[in-house]
Amino acid sequence: MEELHLGLEGIYFNESKICLVDGVQGKLYYRGYSIEDLAEKSNFEEVCYLLLYGSLPRREELERFKEKMRKRRGLNEKTVELIFEGAGKEHAMSTLRTAFSSISAYENYDDDYERSISIISKISTIVAAIGRAMKKKEYVEPSSELDHAENFLYMLNGTYNKESAKVLDKMMILHAEHSSNASTFASLVSTSTLSDIYSSIVSAISTLKGPLHGGADEAALRMIYEIKSPENAEKYVEEALKDKKKIMGFGHRVYKTYDPRAKVIKSTLLGLLNSGDEEVKNLAAIALEVEKIMVNKLGKSHGIWPNVDFFSGPVYRSMDIPPELFTPIFAMSRSPGWCAHIIEYSANNKLIRPLEKYTGEIGLEYKSIDERG
Amino acid sequence: MEELHLGLEGIYFNESKICLVDGVQGKLYYRGYSIEDLAEKSNFEEVCYLLLYGSLPRREELERFKEKMRKRRGLNEKTVELIFEGAGKEHAMSTLRTAFSSISAYENYDDDYERSISIISKISTIVAAIGRAMKKKEYVEPSSELDHAENFLYMLNGTYNKESAKVLDKMMILHAEHSSNASTFASLVSTSTLSDIYSSIVSAISTLKGPLHGGADEAALRMIYEIKSPENAEKYVEEALKDKKKIMGFGHRVYKTYDPRAKVIKSTLLGLLNSGDEEVKNLAAIALEVEKIMVNKLGKSHGIWPNVDFFSGPVYRSMDIPPELFTPIFAMSRSPGWCAHIIEYSANNKLIRPLEKYTGEIGLEYKSIDERG
Repeated sequence: MEELHLGLEGIYFNESKICLVDGVQGKLYYRGYSIEDLAEKSNFEEVCYLLLYGSLPRREELERFKEKMRKRRGLNEKTVELIFEGAGKEHAMSTLRTAFSSISAYENYDDDYERSISIISKISTIVAAIGRAMKKKEYVEPSSELDHAENFLYMLNGTYNKESAKVLDKMMILHAEHSSNASTFASLVSTSTLSDIYSSIVSAISTLKGPLHGGADEAALRMIYEIKSPENAEKYVEEALKDKKKIMGFGHRVYKTYDPRAKVIKSTLLGLLNSGDEEVKNLAAIALEVEKIMVNKLGKSHGIWPNVDFFSGPVYRSMDIPPELFTPIFAMSRSPGWCAHIIEYSANNKLIRPLEKYTGEIGLEYKSIDERG
Repeated sequence: MEELHLGLEGIYFNESKICLVDGVQGKLYYRGYSIEDLAEKSNFEEVCYLLLYGSLPRREELERFKEKMRKRRGLNEKTVELIFEGAGKEHAMSTLRTAFSSISAYENYDDDYERSISIISKISTIVAAIGRAMKKKEYVEPSSELDHAENFLYMLNGTYNKESAKVLDKMMILHAEHSSNASTFASLVSTSTLSDIYSSIVSAISTLKGPLHGGADEAALRMIYEIKSPENAEKYVEEALKDKKKIMGFGHRVYKTYDPRAKVIKSTLLGLLNSGDEEVKNLAAIALEVEKIMVNKLGKSHGIWPNVDFFSGPVYRSMDIPPELFTPIFAMSRSPGWCAHIIEYSANNKLIRPLEKYTGEIGLEYKSIDERG
């Protein structure tokens, strides 16, 4: 009667037309388009449009959308102050949570589509500013001309190159949406009380922060650093498995086969084997070696395959992005997915309020503090 | 196979020993103690201890706990600045969300019990400061001597009386916990990724903001104001029902009988009929008249009974608390329940990640923007 669904595993809470994760076939579709096609042929702004509005834009629609994004990048000076106040004192995701929360005081848009464009634009400005503050460098105002990924690298590093921007753009597409993952689901719980979209995104950021969700790529990279060289990989994996230690970046609640996003990133990683940066080259080689070992040992036999988080770290390192910024970058990449879900859920809202099975006591007698002693 | 559980209604996602809501009998227990006993005989600090640690404190345990609460009330000046920057520009709950989020940069406790004491203490200081900022008055530093409810009224109004503090204390007990309501559930979704307790409380605040959850008492009071006098109540209710308008403060996802908390507040409201303040007296009279009519019309026949939100407004008004502050006060009252749940869930964590049923298209062909026209 009171069947328990721990973690709500296998429970369907809603219908959605945004994203299909086919965990058995290892396929991922945004609004019906395969992730491979989008990663290869589309760009982040177009994918944002697709997720929000449900179809690919015509040229003039895309141009208008990109112009709105460029115009909404700027932050209020109070938000910038908050970032430089918080960064370094705590986890970058906590700084992002507070700084993002602060923007709603200065926003004044008519509907959630317009708010979404502002949110997606501003969150990347906040993340870049956190990166600047962490490096003890001054804030770089957003460009009003560059594309989204270019502008992010420009705000973060004060400079950018087209090649890195293209890789980042692809990474952002791969992370833009993933159905009802924990952060998206948290945003919908907030939405379901008829709260506002800024609050719902704050819930998503608060949830993404956890190492079981957004923190996995940072943890995977730290493991790759720990392994030190491709030659150490086999010994490291064997010992970890013997000690029942979790190998970060492998296994997924939904995918029971190779994560299609990991496949796309793997092709980028193969390119890094030719990098002029020895550290990046070595990280890529270790990652590819661990992948080979793990797929042999645990892939087909146990259904534990590489997920999107495993290969991301070396790719971000190749763009001079520090590990502390990986999860904030995940947040800015996922923001269109969050917004699309919030808009969809609002159109057919129902309060999300599951039950707990009570296993405690009942009818205890209240004794006064004198009687308790 | 893919059975849909909209809003997760009737789905058990966890076991818990914190709170039993018996919606059929109309009973509510915190850690086994009835809400009637706690409201009459206990006090807010003791209830916080009970919720967090699972049993009532002995005298010296309570004294130590209260001392910690008193010592942790103060805010960093940056948080105070944020409050005075945000208040008035947007909903008080948005200001609370940002200001509360900012405190984690200055916190340094060893475990979630100690953090919880700090959170419960500081959130009331933030709410009072928001009230001051809304009234364009200066910040009042917390007292290091007063009890929690007294101190809140003192920080809000610059003065307090024992009688009002006693009523507020009782209101806070009634709102301290309510099993897996939407805000508590949102905090657990965040917790389940191994995020931190501050982030999880931010998710709870973001979720409580919505009018279907925390905003209901404010909406109920606005309705009572709209009715203007007890004589108008019958006509108002009849017209609202004819137009299928929701009567705020009635009906509940879990209670299918009289909400036991509403019963306790009703007894306070009866006292307000003798208030020297004509406005408060009138609000109480209207509320009691609407209740009588609704119970006759919809109570037994439709299972729609008064809930905790219906009677709260006139009671808060009697303490000079503005309606915009009702939901923030709900947040500060519920904070021990949130913290207790976060601690309990963390001890036996499982990622919360339900599924969506995909109803969109699949395998669409990506056309280049030139082909799209």
